[in-house]
Amino acid sequence: MARIALDAMGGDFAPRATVAGALLALSELADEHVIELVGRSDVIQAMLDELTRGEFAASAAAARGRIHIVEAPDVVEMSEKPTNALRNKPNSSMLVGLRRHAEGVVQAFVSAGNTGAQMAASTVMLRLAPGLTRPAIGTLFPTAGQPVLVLDVGANVDCSAEELVQFARIGVVYAEDMLGRQSPVVGLLSIGEEAGKGNAAVKEANQLLAAMPGLNFQGNVEGRDLANGASDRGPFDVVVCDGFVGNVVLKFYEAMAPLVISMVGESTGMDRAALDAAFRHLDYSEHGGAPLLGVRGVSIISHGKSSPRAIMNALKVAARAVESRLAEHVTRRLGADTEAVA
Amino acid sequence: MARIALDAMGGDFAPRATVAGALLALSELADEHVIELVGRSDVIQAMLDELTRGEFAASAAAARGRIHIVEAPDVVEMSEKPTNALRNKPNSSMLVGLRRHAEGVVQAFVSAGNTGAQMAASTVMLRLAPGLTRPAIGTLFPTAGQPVLVLDVGANVDCSAEELVQFARIGVVYAEDMLGRQSPVVGLLSIGEEAGKGNAAVKEANQLLAAMPGLNFQGNVEGRDLANGASDRGPFDVVVCDGFVGNVVLKFYEAMAPLVISMVGESTGMDRAALDAAFRHLDYSEHGGAPLLGVRGVSIISHGKSSPRAIMNALKVAARAVESRLAEHVTRRLGADTEAVA
Repeated sequence: MARIALDAMGGDFAPRATVAGALLALSELADEHVIELVGRSDVIQAMLDELTRGEFAASAAAARGRIHIVEAPDVVEMSEKPTNALRNKPNSSMLVGLRRHAEGVVQAFVSAGNTGAQMAASTVMLRLAPGLTRPAIGTLFPTAGQPVLVLDVGANVDCSAEELVQFARIGVVYAEDMLGRQSPVVGLLSIGEEAGKGNAAVKEANQLLAAMPGLNFQGNVEGRDLANGASDRGPFDVVVCDGFVGNVVLKFYEAMAPLVISMVGESTGMDRAALDAAFRHLDYSEHGGAPLLGVRGVSIISHGKSSPRAIMNALKVAARAVESRLAEHVTRRLGADTEAVA
Repeated sequence: MARIALDAMGGDFAPRATVAGALLALSELADEHVIELVGRSDVIQAMLDELTRGEFAASAAAARGRIHIVEAPDVVEMSEKPTNALRNKPNSSMLVGLRRHAEGVVQAFVSAGNTGAQMAASTVMLRLAPGLTRPAIGTLFPTAGQPVLVLDVGANVDCSAEELVQFARIGVVYAEDMLGRQSPVVGLLSIGEEAGKGNAAVKEANQLLAAMPGLNFQGNVEGRDLANGASDRGPFDVVVCDGFVGNVVLKFYEAMAPLVISMVGESTGMDRAALDAAFRHLDYSEHGGAPLLGVRGVSIISHGKSSPRAIMNALKVAARAVESRLAEHVTRRLGADTEAVA
């Protein structure tokens, strides 16, 4: 059972996409899950009324018991500086939602709003697991093989070797807990498979990861391996990179897949709907949201352009994260590692 | 008219792929172009005899007049340190070929061998255009719109803001000369379109590029824009990034396109050959080779796994670079810029 706070004001298409996403999620999540819509109550109530009278009439009864509105008069703007949001907007939907998580009223928080602000506020309000200096955003990449967890994909742009190592430690716990992988294999994204290839941080991280006891480290992997989910040395579960390269590749992938699909469609005269169906698993919105990894709680970061369907999936990711006790596992495991080192 | 030296020993499939590529090129290049095969003469001669007796029998006569073998007893290994190659292998096919270019015997050099060694040797033997501290590798990315020149894609892993600015200056000349673009539009690859988004080098480069007189700078572009060949602010011709992220995205793209094709093929039962034909322009080997930009000469870097077809295309890229006087233009234009600043 999970009670999840959703930032109803966050994202380019809020509050319609967020409220609709919550309603969609009701039909997919087990009955005991409850969603809190955090934001301007009058706006949210009006949207909820509109949607449950129209498209979501069938969900109206269920919504009454399982959707609650929580007032938050302010909104963090998409382009606002995270530090400004933290200092000056304690009553924003972002900070009110996260505070409810920190206080234990809800077990998870989901937002399609300002990513930087969500990251900073989650770090401050939920705090980090032992031994971490930064949280990371992990995303599942569809590959030719099994999906691969890539982190970081945007939370940290200038990463030290130590931070890359932290991402590996977090990623292993996530791959075990959320993906059910046994002794997950970790690869370090670089520009050549040899340990000496890469930028300064990657070269140093390769040495640190190779020396880390208990880690199933495969060594460097390249961009092509990421597409394949495997290198010449076999498949991997987790790929570690700094948030700059991770974010660029993620966004390139998001845009490339539909582009390739439309090119095939044009050149072959195939039915576009059939192609979309074939490629649904490449659609980022199917994954819904990326958990902010390393915080002591569940903070799911959704795409700013999230559709109702993406919000629904983000809420499902949140419910799964709560049920698997991901955050507790990360905290406990990293705590044990840290004690072992100390 | 161009005389081109080809490193006949360079690449995973040399000397078969290189010699076959040279023979293929003969049929596509105008009669006045001549190719020098540099390497172990006995090995090259045997391969040439084998191929012109078999698959390339029709080219045998043409080959006699337009293909020459130049002896070079040593080979730079694919994993060899560039500094070692430079110091200890003056008689390698790589260094002999480049020396012939530096001495003016040939006007271009092509290799599918050790990229780091080719870059270092080209820098030392051909020297850099005025105002440059590093050469860059540029590659044409097929996009939803027109192809976009991306640089750097692997020559420089840790780049300063000043180096990113150099790449922009080089890229503009290339886009004008080789792609025929008028006042090419330049984008800076980052993780958000706002000037303040990105890692430290990118943020600083954004300011320097925005302040550069005469440059058609669009600002930051994201991974998705790269796939589209355009951002919300319109199409662009050149994308600047450090060689680490550029190389990762390039290799991801190379692997992703055939992957998506095979997925469509499987799910729809389409003919694989028809799909390959539809996507030929996404195939990196079609482009053949990436010119090392910023050196005072033509040094074309081919993929280590180059097929005969890729080598042929690399030789065509070399011939076009010689004909367009790319290197002279870069040198003159960067020289003029440097004087204007001084």
